[in-house]
Order: sequence, then C-alpha cells, then structure tokens
Amino acid sequence: MLVVMRKDATAEQIRGVQEAIEVRGFKAHAIPGAQRTAIGVTGNKGALEAPALEGLPGVLEVIPVTHAYKLVSREVKTENTIVTVGEVEVGGPELVLVAGPCAVETVEQTLAIARAVKSAGAHILRGGAFKPRTSPYSFQGLGEAGLRILAEAREATGLPVVSEAIDVESVDLVEKYCDAIQVGARNMQNFSLLKRVGKAKKPVLLKRGLSATLEEFLMSAEYILAEGNYAVILCERGVRTFSDFSRNTLDLAIVPTVKQISHLPIFVDPSHGTGRRDKVAPLSRAAAAVGADGLIIEVHNDPNRALSDGPQSLTPEMFAELVTDLRKIAPVIGRTL
Amino acid sequence: MLVVMRKDATAEQIRGVQEAIEVRGFKAHAIPGAQRTAIGVTGNKGALEAPALEGLPGVLEVIPVTHAYKLVSREVKTENTIVTVGEVEVGGPELVLVAGPCAVETVEQTLAIARAVKSAGAHILRGGAFKPRTSPYSFQGLGEAGLRILAEAREATGLPVVSEAIDVESVDLVEKYCDAIQVGARNMQNFSLLKRVGKAKKPVLLKRGLSATLEEFLMSAEYILAEGNYAVILCERGVRTFSDFSRNTLDLAIVPTVKQISHLPIFVDPSHGTGRRDKVAPLSRAAAAVGADGLIIEVHNDPNRALSDGPQSLTPEMFAELVTDLRKIAPVIGRTL
Amino acid sequence: MLVVMRKDATAEQIRGVQEAIEVRGFKAHAIPGAQRTAIGVTGNKGALEAPALEGLPGVLEVIPVTHAYKLVSREVKTENTIVTVGEVEVGGPELVLVAGPCAVETVEQTLAIARAVKSAGAHILRGGAFKPRTSPYSFQGLGEAGLRILAEAREATGLPVVSEAIDVESVDLVEKYCDAIQVGARNMQNFSLLKRVGKAKKPVLLKRGLSATLEEFLMSAEYILAEGNYAVILCERGVRTFSDFSRNTLDLAIVPTVKQISHLPIFVDPSHGTGRRDKVAPLSRAAAAVGADGLIIEVHNDPNRALSDGPQSLTPEMFAELVTDLRKIAPVIGRTL
Amino acid sequence: MLVVMRKDATAEQIRGVQEAIEVRGFKAHAIPGAQRTAIGVTGNKGALEAPALEGLPGVLEVIPVTHAYKLVSREVKTENTIVTVGEVEVGGPELVLVAGPCAVETVEQTLAIARAVKSAGAHILRGGAFKPRTSPYSFQGLGEAGLRILAEAREATGLPVVSEAIDVESVDLVEKYCDAIQVGARNMQNFSLLKRVGKAKKPVLLKRGLSATLEEFLMSAEYILAEGNYAVILCERGVRTFSDFSRNTLDLAIVPTVKQISHLPIFVDPSHGTGRRDKVAPLSRAAAAVGADGLIIEVHNDPNRALSDGPQSLTPEMFAELVTDLRKIAPVIGRTL
Repeated sequence: MLVVMRKDATAEQIRGVQEAIEVRGFKAHAIPGAQRTAIGVTGNKGALEAPALEGLPGVLEVIPVTHAYKLVSREVKTENTIVTVGEVEVGGPELVLVAGPCAVETVEQTLAIARAVKSAGAHILRGGAFKPRTSPYSFQGLGEAGLRILAEAREATGLPVVSEAIDVESVDLVEKYCDAIQVGARNMQNFSLLKRVGKAKKPVLLKRGLSATLEEFLMSAEYILAEGNYAVILCERGVRTFSDFSRNTLDLAIVPTVKQISHLPIFVDPSHGTGRRDKVAPLSRAAAAVGADGLIIEVHNDPNRALSDGPQSLTPEMFAELVTDLRKIAPVIGRTL
Repeated sequence: MLVVMRKDATAEQIRGVQEAIEVRGFKAHAIPGAQRTAIGVTGNKGALEAPALEGLPGVLEVIPVTHAYKLVSREVKTENTIVTVGEVEVGGPELVLVAGPCAVETVEQTLAIARAVKSAGAHILRGGAFKPRTSPYSFQGLGEAGLRILAEAREATGLPVVSEAIDVESVDLVEKYCDAIQVGARNMQNFSLLKRVGKAKKPVLLKRGLSATLEEFLMSAEYILAEGNYAVILCERGVRTFSDFSRNTLDLAIVPTVKQISHLPIFVDPSHGTGRRDKVAPLSRAAAAVGADGLIIEVHNDPNRALSDGPQSLTPEMFAELVTDLRKIAPVIGRTL
Repeated sequence: MLVVMRKDATAEQIRGVQEAIEVRGFKAHAIPGAQRTAIGVTGNKGALEAPALEGLPGVLEVIPVTHAYKLVSREVKTENTIVTVGEVEVGGPELVLVAGPCAVETVEQTLAIARAVKSAGAHILRGGAFKPRTSPYSFQGLGEAGLRILAEAREATGLPVVSEAIDVESVDLVEKYCDAIQVGARNMQNFSLLKRVGKAKKPVLLKRGLSATLEEFLMSAEYILAEGNYAVILCERGVRTFSDFSRNTLDLAIVPTVKQISHLPIFVDPSHGTGRRDKVAPLSRAAAAVGADGLIIEVHNDPNRALSDGPQSLTPEMFAELVTDLRKIAPVIGRTL
Repeated sequence: MLVVMRKDATAEQIRGVQEAIEVRGFKAHAIPGAQRTAIGVTGNKGALEAPALEGLPGVLEVIPVTHAYKLVSREVKTENTIVTVGEVEVGGPELVLVAGPCAVETVEQTLAIARAVKSAGAHILRGGAFKPRTSPYSFQGLGEAGLRILAEAREATGLPVVSEAIDVESVDLVEKYCDAIQVGARNMQNFSLLKRVGKAKKPVLLKRGLSATLEEFLMSAEYILAEGNYAVILCERGVRTFSDFSRNTLDLAIVPTVKQISHLPIFVDPSHGTGRRDKVAPLSRAAAAVGADGLIIEVHNDPNRALSDGPQSLTPEMFAELVTDLRKIAPVIGRTL
C-alpha cells in the first residue's frame, strides 16, 4: 500500500500516518519527493485494508498495491491447474466443449440433445434443474427430477454432466447426481453458497457476476479454495454495460488476463454472453481464438419451444457446424479438439 | 409486445408470425405501415417472453411492451404502501433515518452508537451481524451473538433494529431478533433467499444490486410479495459504473421513478453509495431532497478502528450535524423529521 | 508512481527497473517488503507516463500516483475561483440558475421564455443556436440568427446569455454575441475546440463527457486554463451507464469531489441528466442539496411543440415552482438565492 | 412507434393521443388489449421523435420502433459495400491488416516500421500526425511534417496510408497526403468534423466512441454518407465499462450485429481496445474469428521508447508472429490473408 500525502502536509501529519501504520503491525517507509511525500507500507501480515488510512490528516490518497487473493494466484502455484470433470481434463491441451439445454425439460429432450452434442464433439453435458429466473412467474426448473434426467443422460452417452446449484440445499443434490457444480453469475457473491461448494467433493464452475471486477471474481474463487476445494473452473459470461445490442458484453480480454495471474482454467459462455442465437457462433470462435480453456454453449433441439432462454440456443446442426470451425481454430492456439 | 417485420418480409412470413403468436394463446394485430408491417400482441395470459419470436423468418425486432411485475406496480395498488418497522412507519410523511455501525462489534460499541444516533434523531438502528465480505479473510460478523447485542440495544433505546440475512439459515435468526430483515445488494437475485424472506413475518429491506436494472429490482421485490410478504422497502445504494472517484454511483433518479410506477417505499444508502465519509453528508442531503422515504447511514463512534467499512462511517457528531440539515430539507418536499 | 515487482523478481530485474526510472530523469526508491519489492518514483519533471515501465522484466504492476492536472488543482490555487458571466458571479455564495430553451426557435419564443425565467428568479439565459444532434436529419439550430435572438433577449431582460459552440468557427460567433461559451458533452475531448476556447475572452461552461472519468474531465479543463482562460465552469450532466430508466445517470458525487480537488465552480444539468420532465425538479433539488454552484435547466413555453428535447423541458410555471423549493434548500448549504 | 396507455386511461385520453399523432402527419392504430390499449404509429414522413408523446395524459410509455438511420442500413442497400483504400479493397474477401506506429516520430522510425509490417503481411500503414491527447502537456504529434513522412513511407513501400484528422483544418491536410482519413473515438460525435469528411474525396475510418450505442455509431456514419461520401469503414476499439483490467472493453459482438443491419465494413482495433501489448495478439485472433473485415494494430520498433501509447504496441517480430496465426484463422471464416 502507498499513502500519498498532500503537498502541504506537515512533518507531524507524516509522522501521524507512519504511527497509524506501525500500530497496525506494518512497516512505514517514507519516500520524500520533490513535491510531496509518499509512504510505502510493507509487512507480512496480509493486506492492510485500503481505506483505513484515508481519513487521517494530511493524506491525499491511499493506493492499494497488493491483492487480497492468494491461493488462486500464479505466484502461489506456477503451473496450470487441471480440473477433472468425470474423466474430462479441463485446463490441459484439449479445448473442452460443454453443451446442452438451458433447462432440463423431459427425458426425451435431454437424451436427444445429449446424443446430438456428443456426436458433434461435446465433452460435457450441461442442463439446468434449478433455474434462477428474474421473474417468480417463470419456469423455475424441474429440481431433483431434472438432475435424475441428467444422470440418465450421462449413463446413456458417457458424457459427464454439470448443473447449477442455487442454494445450500441444491448443492447437496447437484453434488449427488452431477460431475460438476455450477455457481451462476447472480450467486457469484453468495458467500454462503461459495463456502458450501468449497466443501464439496466435486469441481465447481464459477461464473463471473454481471458487474464483478476481476479482483472480486478471483476472490470468490478464493472463497472456494480457502475451504479446501481446489477444483475451480472460472467462466466469463458477459458483463453488464450500456451497450444495448446484445444481452451482455462479453469481456474476452479476461481470458489472457486470468491466464497471467491465476493458475485456474477459464471458460467462456457465449450463449449468455450474447443472448442471441445468431451471435453465438461468431463469439464462440472468438472465445476459442482468445485462448479459453473451454466453451459452454446452449443447444436445444427445438429452440423456439424451449421453456427457458430458447432464443440463445443453437440447434444441434448449428452446433455441429460450429464444432467444425472450432476444430480449425484450436490448433492455432496450440490446442486439440 | 410489438413485432417489427423487415421491409422485405413476405405476406407468408407475416402470417407465420401471426400464427406463432396465436398458437401461444395471444392475439395478433397487424399494423401495415408505409414501409413495413408491425404486429401488436395482446392477451390476458401474462407476458409473452420477449425473445420467443425473434428467430422467426422476416422478423426485424421484437419489442417488449408490458412489464413482468404485477404486485409491486402502482397499477395494481394506487396508494402508497406504509411499512411498519417496530412502531416506525416507513413510506408515510416522516423522513425515516436508519443509523448504526456497519458491523456489530461489542455491546459497548453498539449501545454507545445506538444512544448517540437516537439522541440525534434516528428512528431505526442498523448493524451487521452476518457480513458478506469480498474476501474470505475479512471479518465476517459476530453472527447470532451480534443479533443479541442488537436486541439489547433495542431494549436500551427503544429503537427497532434491522440487520442483514445472507442465507436461509440467517433469516431464521434475524427474523427472531430483529424488526426488519435486510437483503443485501449482492443477494438481490438470490432467489432462494427472496422466497424465504417472502414467508417471513417481518418487513424486508431490499437493496438494489450493483448492476440491477429497475425491472430486475422490482422483480426481486415481486418475488417477496408473491410469497405473501407485502412489507418491502426498496433501497438504492449505488450502482457500478466506470466512474471511479466514489465506490459506487448513486442513482438518485430511481427515487422519483419508483414513486411513479410502484407503491413501495424507497430508501437511499449514501454510505455504501459513496464509500467515503466526506461524501456521505452531501449525498444524504441530495437523497432527502430527491424525495427518498428514508436514509440508511453508517455511524461509528471510532470509525478509524471499525472492523468493517470504517472509512465510510460518520462519527456521531457528524451524524447529528447532518440531521440538523435534513430537518430543514424535509419540509421542502412535504415531509416531517 | 509506484512499481510493484513480482515476488520472484531477481535483484537484476529490480536494478533494471531502477535504471529505467533514472534514465528518464526520475529518482527510484526501492522499498523491500516481506514478500516483494516495490519501487517508488519521485522527481519534479512532471508525471512519468504510467505504462512506460509496465513491460520491463519482473514488473507485476505500475501504479500511477500523481495526477496529470495542475492548474485546475486546489493544490495550486487554494481559494475558490469566481467566474463572472455578465455581472453574475459563479462560484460565490449565490446558487446560480441558468434557464432557457434547449434550442432558440423564434424571437417571440425566446423573449417569452427569457422574461418568464427572469421573473421566476433565473440569473442567466441559455439557448442553443448550434445544436449537436445525433441524427443528420434533426433540426440543427438557427446558427448566427439564433445568437442574435439571444442577444436581443439579453437587451430586453438584462440576463447574460450562454450558448454552445460546436467547432472553431462557431466559437467566434458565440464569443461575439454571448456572455459565456458552452462546450458540450460530446465535445469534451475535442481538443482543437478546447484550445480555441482557451484563447477566448469569455468564460467557458465545460460539460462532462458521457463516459469521462474525473481525471479526463479535469484534464479537459486544464487544456482551457493552459491556453490562458481561467474562467471555466464545470458541469455534470449525467453519464452513460446500464441504468435504463433515465436518459443518463446523474453522478452527483462529483460535486463534493470536485470541490475538494479543484478550485473551479461546478454546475449540474438535471435536464440532460434525466431526459424526463417529471424527474427534473427532484434532481434539481438534489443537485442544490449536494452543493452545486448552479443549475442549468431547460424551460420552454410549449414543451410539446419544442423543436428539440421538448420532453425534458419544464414549463415556466414548473420552473417557478422549482425555484420556490430551491430558495428553501439554498440556505441549508450556506447559499443565497 | 408504439404508445402504451395506462390501464386506467380514459377513452378521451386515448383519442387525445391519436389526435396528437395525426396532427403530426402520422397514422394512429389503436390496439385494444385485455388490460390496456396500445397505439401503433405509422407513416412515411421519417421517424417521429420518441419522446414527443410521452407527456400526454394517460400515456404509460412510448416505444420507438423505427431506427433513424437510413443510408447505412442494409434495408437500403443489400450487398456489402467495398471501400477502396489506395488499391486495397476493404469489405471483400481479404482480411485487411492496418499496422504502424501510434504516432509518427521520425522518417527512420516510420520507414523501418512500414517495411517491417509490409514484409509481415500488412496491407495499409497507419500513423498519427495529429494526436488527440488527454493531457495538454503530452506530445501532440508532428502535424503536417508527420503526414509528409507517411507519404514518404507510402512511396518507399507501396502501402496506402491512413491517419487521423482532429478538426476541419487537419482534414484538409490528411486528405491531401493520405489514402484514408481516420475519425477518432473522441470525435465520433464531432458533427462538424463528420460533415467535413462527408465531403472529402477519401474514404473515412470512423471509430466508435467510448460510450456510443450502436444506433449513435451508425448515425455518425449516416452523417458522412448523407454528405455524399459512401466510403466509410466502421471500427470497434473498445468501450468504457467498470471492467478495470484492460484499458477498454472490446465489444466484439458488434461485428456480427453490424454485418446484419449495415452494408458497411467494420474493423477492430485491439491495440486501443486492450491497451496492453500482451493482450493485443489474443484479441486480434478473436477479432479475426468473430468476422471483422480488418484489424488495426499498433506496431513500433522500440515500444518502450515510443512517444505515445508505447505499452500497447507490438514489436515487428510479435506482429509477424500474429500474422502467421491470422493466416490460419482467416479461412475458417471464409476469408483470405
């Protein structure tokens, strides 16, 4: 942390700030400049919270330097983390494709889609049984019945399955039936939920919140690792901005950024990221080209009748065509598919 | 809903869209224009979800017209809702002041602050016992012990108390000890939590999410009302934008907007909305002047040693001075204080 | 500036960064911490541009500390700047009201509005003659003819007048006919225009751009001061965010922030800030309460027939009623009206 | 346009709105619904401005339906526009690469970079002679001398050149020396400048403003086409959001969106879009994969000593390596390189 003093700060004010730093168990390093003094703060006690010194007399600004995340940082673990979902390795050379319906509706629908995406090249099946919906009057998912259908689809196709948990209760069920537990964007800072999945025996797919900074996103992952679950896959799914022609703004620069500062794998979800079927394929290609470890794509065999988010679902044919393109892009970034 | 067809849409495509509308139980009204046809959709089945028609051939755009909220709407209930917290009426003529520490730390601290804010004019005591913190390594609150301290402070001062619940378990406790249950910004779309507080016997103070649209904010309130709890107080606490000199951007225009379309009362939280002590008073005055039903303000007797969010807390003296100003502003907008 | 080194940075890399700093004429101060080294940069040569050191081996982050603005800073000039428009003092004890039509349309309209706002208490008349319009097909203003009408209205009422210039040519005309030159939000970083008004003999009213940070806003003012024109009034008029119920999001916290770091006066424009007539009065009250030096409000005698931005214009009666409210709020913040 | 009436709107209020529509020369189509009446507006007079009806009694909401842009729309011109810069065809099958220094500094620097990017595969040379800089104290470009250097580089390499104009005066010069005129993001709504380049004989490269909606972006292009210059290339260069780990947020979904609604070609600028050298290559690959017609990339032979924006410049070697990747991605989307 760096404390920048006002130009007119007195020697006494500077001493006051130094004492306030030392009283908290840190070391203060005064850096007298031509125009003003700055005071560097060091120590091995963990981060001093930034604003604690802001109110002191003579202080112009306090600038946080160290980040609060630890376990997720590449400074703690240099090599990439490989997360295993079923038998699929995420974070390794393979570009991993997760595909399936937004919501599990029926056995027939789920099996049909599972078979179609498998034959097109998908590695993992997705499907929602607990749906966080903006409106209380919208379809909220089949619950445990939906998870059973997913498990059935796994048996039929061999694809591991991932589904979203929305509270502590549903984690128990998703953990029981599925191979990975999704935490949705709206729950990225539901810390009770994060602590619970941190104790789970299954990997966690953590989606970035609609207005989460990178620091907050990594801190939410840190919650999970801090409870002992190191199998976390991050997922960019678009952020909320003024830009109004797609449902969200897909923030693809987060992929190379996460790769630099964290050892965790990161996926991209172009379906929620755009909200429009006709943009899913272009943004999927972009996400592969930017270096994502995998993609999550909604596929529905009858998108116009889907109970949830139909308009952003690809048909199985569109998905198969997309996979053909992705197979050509993967080698460019040194990946297999 | 209005479906706008492309200029070159064929008669057959227009018929196709009309059929798709009618098959869903709605009525289609073609409006032939000079350049293109638009198709109005009406019906009393509740809202047709906007994107369902977007993929049909010949469609240029689909424009949602009706809103999904019902119970929160002033079209359903014309007169203002008065929510009673303890014996304090929220949404009536009084400008309601909620004040207290960010986090409950000790009995002494809480009692001292409670007495100070009461004598300055506050109506309700606030204090966090379950703290949603970005970092797993930050102080997470005293839990039930903190709620007991709040209840003690109520007995000592007569002030009703409000505290945040962060999951279904903590709702039980907050409901037991407090007079109102706060749902924080990060949990605004934690739908399990919303359903639970919708069944609570105590009023709910619902904070706007950091990137929530007005529609989403009202739909989250709708979740609570739909479960039977009509005692909801909305609260603006700043949204996340590019603007970087305050922690969040306080979106005060939401106050007159909510007043027009909803019967629910709305508070403003200038402490979280700005994140800086020196901006709390100016923005509190602004919030009163814009017509908020109440303010939530963090007050701490030793802000520089506060365990949580100290830098945005006012001292009791600063709070008392602010109340003096608010007493002059309240009558301008026809309120008492 | 502070350069934060990676934990694994070698002594050689640290020396490399120090040399890179010194080669540019600055001093490097190594601050060895428990986990990593940081390097403080000082010097009186003006700001070293932040990213220049980012690419060096071993560097984790570079954190800018000093700001690039100088002349606008309160560190350079402690006391408030008073800008005189006609004979009206802006930045002193008076809450200054600027009112008038969005666009000058006819002599009759302008005179009628000018008389109405003067009798209601306005100090300065506003009116657009050069209109920056999103569409090339929208009314673009009367040009010089409009400025002549404004000058006529000044003679008739004694109100000084302010109007927008949109390029170097129109500055000549606005400077000739008006008492202050407005630079609009869309031109906040039109640096050629800023340099030109920096040479003008009339005060400049500089509106914040729709996505301008505080730093950029102040740097645009710095452009004007750097050319010798110290008579600059800043103006917050709303920023662009995801929030969709008002045209822009009025960022009122900028007012106390500017007051701390700059000596320049700051206005608020609730008409453009909200875009809706029914929100102008509440946000005007809020802007006065937050401490703005003045307000700019669109008033039209027949808003529904206005050629430009009618729906955000108040009628003269609504404006008079608003002034009555503002007269009660002004003394709360130590102002007269 | 669609006018949605309140549920409790009277028959008289509905008639009032219909009359207000017809008095403006449009047709009103009442659509009585189960709960409320909506009124469709049609007519061939061009768009009725949305808010004109908002203040009328009984009106709940006014929803714009038609867009204000015409000439840029694919409804007006179905086939893609090919813009010719020098002899390079933009908008055809070739993925066009524009590369060069942020700012022209010296003949040697410019020639060296021009030769390097040409040999790596670039089609067009870029270089700034008039630099819009946030700070008045930053290097502002060489002006006409810089343009002469660019012209020299064109002679030496055969590459056509593009450079930014920042006001009406500099358009004259850029038009004289260069093959295309760039309008920068900060000037996207500098309408005087747009009108001037609309009269130019050279193609225009129009960058999206930092907070421009798609509608505004297209309307700025419409200004240029409306003056007679149909040779416009759009360019996405990142928008401003809360997301803080890259300089801007590259909004790649705009590429397929523009392709649907406009016939104009669109480029992507990953250098300004990310602001960090190490993110330029990944985002360049993404931009190619999403379907951009071309890329603009800053290349400098000594980025750490560049006078402007060095940290986002690639070295010639990095650029050559990137082109190798792009050559593999281009065919995936049916392009040549």
